[in-house]
Amino acid sequence: MKPSEQRIAEGILFTDFYQLTMAQLYFRAGLHEKQVQFDHFFRDYPDYGAHKAGYCISAGLEWLVDWMQEAHFGSDDVEYLSQQTTRTGQQMFADDFLDWLARNGTFEGITLHAIPEGRVVHPNVPLSVVQGPMIPAQLLETALLNYLNYQTLIATKAARMHHSGRGRLLLEFGLRRGQDKGANAGARAALIGGADYTSNVGISRILGYPPKGTHAHSMVQVYMALGLGELGAFRAYADLYPDDCLLLVDTINSLESGIPNAIIVFEELRRKGHEPLGIRLDSGDLAYLSIQAAKMLDAAGFPNTTITLSNNLDELVIWQIITQIKDEAPRWGVDPDHLINRLAFGAGTRLITSWGEPALGGVYKLVAVCNEEQWVPAIKVSESADKTPNPGHKNAWRLYDLRGKATADLLSKEHEDPRQMDRITLRHPSDHSKSRILERAELSEIEPLLVEIIHEGRLVVDLPSIEQMRQRREADMDRLDPGVRRLVNPHIYHVSLTDGLWKLKQSLVASALDQSQ
Amino acid sequence: MKPSEQRIAEGILFTDFYQLTMAQLYFRAGLHEKQVQFDHFFRDYPDYGAHKAGYCISAGLEWLVDWMQEAHFGSDDVEYLSQQTTRTGQQMFADDFLDWLARNGTFEGITLHAIPEGRVVHPNVPLSVVQGPMIPAQLLETALLNYLNYQTLIATKAARMHHSGRGRLLLEFGLRRGQDKGANAGARAALIGGADYTSNVGISRILGYPPKGTHAHSMVQVYMALGLGELGAFRAYADLYPDDCLLLVDTINSLESGIPNAIIVFEELRRKGHEPLGIRLDSGDLAYLSIQAAKMLDAAGFPNTTITLSNNLDELVIWQIITQIKDEAPRWGVDPDHLINRLAFGAGTRLITSWGEPALGGVYKLVAVCNEEQWVPAIKVSESADKTPNPGHKNAWRLYDLRGKATADLLSKEHEDPRQMDRITLRHPSDHSKSRILERAELSEIEPLLVEIIHEGRLVVDLPSIEQMRQRREADMDRLDPGVRRLVNPHIYHVSLTDGLWKLKQSLVASALDQSQ
Repeated sequence: MKPSEQRIAEGILFTDFYQLTMAQLYFRAGLHEKQVQFDHFFRDYPDYGAHKAGYCISAGLEWLVDWMQEAHFGSDDVEYLSQQTTRTGQQMFADDFLDWLARNGTFEGITLHAIPEGRVVHPNVPLSVVQGPMIPAQLLETALLNYLNYQTLIATKAARMHHSGRGRLLLEFGLRRGQDKGANAGARAALIGGADYTSNVGISRILGYPPKGTHAHSMVQVYMALGLGELGAFRAYADLYPDDCLLLVDTINSLESGIPNAIIVFEELRRKGHEPLGIRLDSGDLAYLSIQAAKMLDAAGFPNTTITLSNNLDELVIWQIITQIKDEAPRWGVDPDHLINRLAFGAGTRLITSWGEPALGGVYKLVAVCNEEQWVPAIKVSESADKTPNPGHKNAWRLYDLRGKATADLLSKEHEDPRQMDRITLRHPSDHSKSRILERAELSEIEPLLVEIIHEGRLVVDLPSIEQMRQRREADMDRLDPGVRRLVNPHIYHVSLTDGLWKLKQSLVASALDQSQ
Repeated sequence: MKPSEQRIAEGILFTDFYQLTMAQLYFRAGLHEKQVQFDHFFRDYPDYGAHKAGYCISAGLEWLVDWMQEAHFGSDDVEYLSQQTTRTGQQMFADDFLDWLARNGTFEGITLHAIPEGRVVHPNVPLSVVQGPMIPAQLLETALLNYLNYQTLIATKAARMHHSGRGRLLLEFGLRRGQDKGANAGARAALIGGADYTSNVGISRILGYPPKGTHAHSMVQVYMALGLGELGAFRAYADLYPDDCLLLVDTINSLESGIPNAIIVFEELRRKGHEPLGIRLDSGDLAYLSIQAAKMLDAAGFPNTTITLSNNLDELVIWQIITQIKDEAPRWGVDPDHLINRLAFGAGTRLITSWGEPALGGVYKLVAVCNEEQWVPAIKVSESADKTPNPGHKNAWRLYDLRGKATADLLSKEHEDPRQMDRITLRHPSDHSKSRILERAELSEIEPLLVEIIHEGRLVVDLPSIEQMRQRREADMDRLDPGVRRLVNPHIYHVSLTDGLWKLKQSLVASALDQSQ
């Protein structure tokens, strides 16, 4: 794509066509400046096939905000739309509508509340809430979903890998397997969710993290083709980077060639006063090979060099490697905990694509319309009750039990404040038979989740740094019940409605069904 | 991401850090301008879990070429690299290396051969071949894989959906579920592979296809919240777009509300002299609902309106819908073929993510190094023989049998021309026991696959239009054996080596193993 084309394809036209056909309809009906509210939420945790998440990590907001502040209808965008024709060859978008778009087609009237990046989030709780005039609010849908769905998906996958890797160094290596420039968003989300660093140089630069990486198999091959062999390659690398010497040992054979050659070079380095960094294994039985590598490195006097593992790692593979090391290492005379502590994990394809569930099903649903200065909650009566969005203006709260662990997220009507309630009825969002009552004394804290980010087009908060997002994620993960956090068959976290919101929803469903008769 | 950051993250630093550490090593060793060759290929067809592809469709090349022509080390990129430090706090990249990069860090010395976009391609055949000085050739790896892997993956998925949908209209709807701006690349690849149109406005604009889409559930909800109901929403839409009236009928209940209301509006349209376009179904049992919709529309005198289906469609879901219509429609008095001919398919998440296999495992392997004016084939001896790349300069050929169907792809040494051979020995790339012999008389055509695209930095071909790529795909699909084309358990297409290339590979493997002793 040429730069001039990129400017077009990533600006205000980074949207679905139906947003524009609907916009003209609202304009023609005089509804274009009517105030509306859309909620953005996901309905289900990522389900990776063999396993399913019990939480997600929100991410993507800052890039959405950046886009909103840039996107507008330029004269060439309007010109392009004026050339669109109907089946009978007439101009599809009328000039008066296009004039309005050119003057008003920005997000200057939008107010955005959102759950900040890095926080633990759950299904059916709005991650973002958009209020504003009909056309801009509707036009925002596609880009908002694009930005928030993907980064939340990847931050979640990274958090799971960080968890299964017991907090050992996690490196994001997925640039070559992402979707075009979307790989940059994936690297950012991985850092928010749990990766410590990324190999992606551009993203590292703009986010202020040092990029990571050493060398590829090709470097060893070059030296082999020149007759200098793997040892020659390792020596050249160690000469140039004596204090950062991490060698990829599996180009020929890890145990018979790579690790012995690495040890020769490590010994040479140490004689010159440098400590080697470690080795990387990128193929084969990584659990077995890391035990053998540890044994060989220990015996050679390098008990603390890093052993970095890569090759299709995800949270289950990492878990399996660690489990096997725990079981097997003692039989080889290797201390398993010491070995695990020296591991690092490089995650490419399966992190950047969220392997097993490559999309988050976030949706953007109309929940309220302001009619003659009165907000009217809106409802969509789908085929199934559990897909019916929760209507109207709402607040989202997190309830912590006396252990300080999150016990439920609660959606209330706008003016309800559960902090003022002595007892709180938590109703299941769709199943009328399920509810529970919590006494205020059973709770240590009730925390509002949504923060006003943009007020009528103006950014009204200081957006956090990536480091602050990471700290927020760690704090939220600590306050998650271990049963919710676990990798497989997690306990299902409760997302509930107050009694007031539940009753509103039921009455709207009933009247929508009436209306459809 | 802010525009200034985007420029950084998508330029020459859109790469993995190890490309730069290796580059400095080659510079220091005096190897930086040594001529090398890398082959790019994938090892396996996408395996979607329940099914596996029998072919891929190449895509992404033009955007890679565009990137290569723009990317270079600006003074700020060099400044950034000069600030990178080692573990001991010293400057990681030396000034003389950075000076060289600033002057020579472009792709002006690169020659690129590739299989053009839109062609059927198979594992282990180079999709692209890069020759040039060591540093630029190595630096190109990450971006090349990023651009070509993803678009090839999506073009392949689109081709499968086009095939299972029997060529009925296929619309790409995935923008909200792609990876950030990568969704634009996905939409482009879908058009190359088999989608007829996309809802993505920006991509439609730059590629010259009309964007497609009508309205969302939210439009119906707005009218319901205003007390005007679904019928009011449909009427408003029909008034504005009388010749392009396609109505989404499942906001309340497709059979009891949406379709009856659509028919009322269609009748009103026809009285005003307009023919309605059709309906869209986005939830529920799409096979059953489309039969019922056809029955109702037929009875009302609209036997030719389109029925567009959407909601998590992929090639198996489409196949199942068509199969069920074939079986069930006659029992409802609906002609199945007539119904199938009026269907259109909208594909979002599962197309843009290549659901089931969200990454193509394309790799970039060093296959030759020029040492003192002599090209030396390079080899990487991996753990398994089938992962060992085919060494040296090669040509790639497609062999057609007397039916005109492709029977095998053949890799030869550079100066071998199978068109000059009376009989061709086709050897399995790794299994010495497998070979077959084809007489020239058994073949109708032997076609070279690789085309020179860039000669020493200069584009030397007119890149084809998307429409030309689509035609090329159709022609290649026609020349594929139906057994290779089928959706499930495809016949495995043969990719073979000439006897000459096979012998070269064996001797290199043997000497690499010797060298490692």
